[in-house]
Amino acid sequence: MKTISHINDLRAEIKKEKAKGNSIGLVPTMGFLHEGHLSLIRSAKKENDIVVVSIFVNPTQFNKKDDLDSYPRDLNRDSKLVEAEDADILFIPSVEEMYPNGYSTYLEVEGLITKQLCGKSREGHFKGVTTIVSKLFNMVTPHRAYFGQKDAQQVAVIEKMVRDMNMDIEIVPCPIVREADGLALSSRNALLKENERKEAIILSKSLFAAEKMIIDGERLASKIKSFITENIKTVKDAEIDYVEVVNGKTLENIHIVEGDVLIAVAVKMGKPRLIDNIRLEV
Amino acid sequence: MKTISHINDLRAEIKKEKAKGNSIGLVPTMGFLHEGHLSLIRSAKKENDIVVVSIFVNPTQFNKKDDLDSYPRDLNRDSKLVEAEDADILFIPSVEEMYPNGYSTYLEVEGLITKQLCGKSREGHFKGVTTIVSKLFNMVTPHRAYFGQKDAQQVAVIEKMVRDMNMDIEIVPCPIVREADGLALSSRNALLKENERKEAIILSKSLFAAEKMIIDGERLASKIKSFITENIKTVKDAEIDYVEVVNGKTLENIHIVEGDVLIAVAVKMGKPRLIDNIRLEV
Repeated sequence: MKTISHINDLRAEIKKEKAKGNSIGLVPTMGFLHEGHLSLIRSAKKENDIVVVSIFVNPTQFNKKDDLDSYPRDLNRDSKLVEAEDADILFIPSVEEMYPNGYSTYLEVEGLITKQLCGKSREGHFKGVTTIVSKLFNMVTPHRAYFGQKDAQQVAVIEKMVRDMNMDIEIVPCPIVREADGLALSSRNALLKENERKEAIILSKSLFAAEKMIIDGERLASKIKSFITENIKTVKDAEIDYVEVVNGKTLENIHIVEGDVLIAVAVKMGKPRLIDNIRLEV
Repeated sequence: MKTISHINDLRAEIKKEKAKGNSIGLVPTMGFLHEGHLSLIRSAKKENDIVVVSIFVNPTQFNKKDDLDSYPRDLNRDSKLVEAEDADILFIPSVEEMYPNGYSTYLEVEGLITKQLCGKSREGHFKGVTTIVSKLFNMVTPHRAYFGQKDAQQVAVIEKMVRDMNMDIEIVPCPIVREADGLALSSRNALLKENERKEAIILSKSLFAAEKMIIDGERLASKIKSFITENIKTVKDAEIDYVEVVNGKTLENIHIVEGDVLIAVAVKMGKPRLIDNIRLEV
């Protein structure tokens, strides 16, 4: 595995591989890797000749400085994990490399799709995400890029960006990886205190119960929302940011549960804010 | 020459050429071609195996509907001119092809560089320009792209976009082409009435005179600005939008004329608004 910090070196390496006719898969991450990330790398390995993993805690997608500062980091451990998955290139640029002095260009998906859900409480977040992802796309020019379905809104926004901007890249969303008790894996889980960690299973538990309600015939989005809300409220440390039932592609609110349905929740659990979702075809 | 209207067909053609190892030059235009455009195509022909010319009157870079509506168009004539220059591909997409229903993604270079000069009176203009140019870049994936130096601010903004977004494309600015009497070629010149056409030479005439003042030793930007302003004011139908003396790369105002200097003017001449500039190393 080659570890690269500079854009020019990365580009030279990519050109060498493309000249050989090799396909490129990109797994963009913010590091502090868990099984969810590793599952993305494994999918990329299966479908591409060369796998590039990037680790960059992107400041422009954090709207709160303390959230950026407290975001967990462990580059040493990450590097070993990526190498163990047999990735070919680990790209770990500095903030100055990605946003040099005088930087001022941003790519933004406008409209409801970035205003809803996480866009409401994290102003500017998706503008930072689409900017950094399109920069990485321009550097790596991958054939495929892998994203976790846990960040369902991020997947929908990036898919729209790729369509709108005519980027010739296949976006591959990968299933949520969960702990044995159901908690969706997240780098932020490392910030949970012991009791909060136990309580945090309320997110997946109420989502799975809601899924069962739908399978059993419930079609009113309002019933599903209030069921999940009431469930999460039973937990002492949980502070609900949102519980939403939306169209899985456009993220528009729906009243009747049918078609491509995304049920998404965001809950502050002590310090960290956790998200989880289920997407189903009804 | 192949004339293509659909993005998928364009992409297929480009892939075929790239597979043969051919280099691609892109000349993005809004049509109603003149010698200025043709000089871009000629430069592109010299430096690339395959030349793609696009003609698209981009609605997102017009902030006034009547300006968009009255923008001159003649696709038949344009097509013959492009073919005569031996371009390989003419890309003429529809508005619906470029901005399908629900389109909402924009790329913007923020800050002074887009707020100054034409950015002041044409709000959102450069956001439209950078969005459409980056869409074309994503479709054509050219090695080089050609832009006229007449739109000096556009060149500076696109160069910054390419740097900031890590696009692997060489931007080639080409010299202003002028009529025998000095008037910079522009598709908008077609909208000038006969008397306005005669008066319009005041733009280049005062710029050239200002250049001579600098060669003769003048170093105060304020003196240059007021000289040009007074000159243009002698013309009855001229309504000045701006006269600016700025750094040619950053477009920051300068007080002392030295280094990379851009002197740029924009003047409403009856109906059309004309721009012109000179750039010099002092």
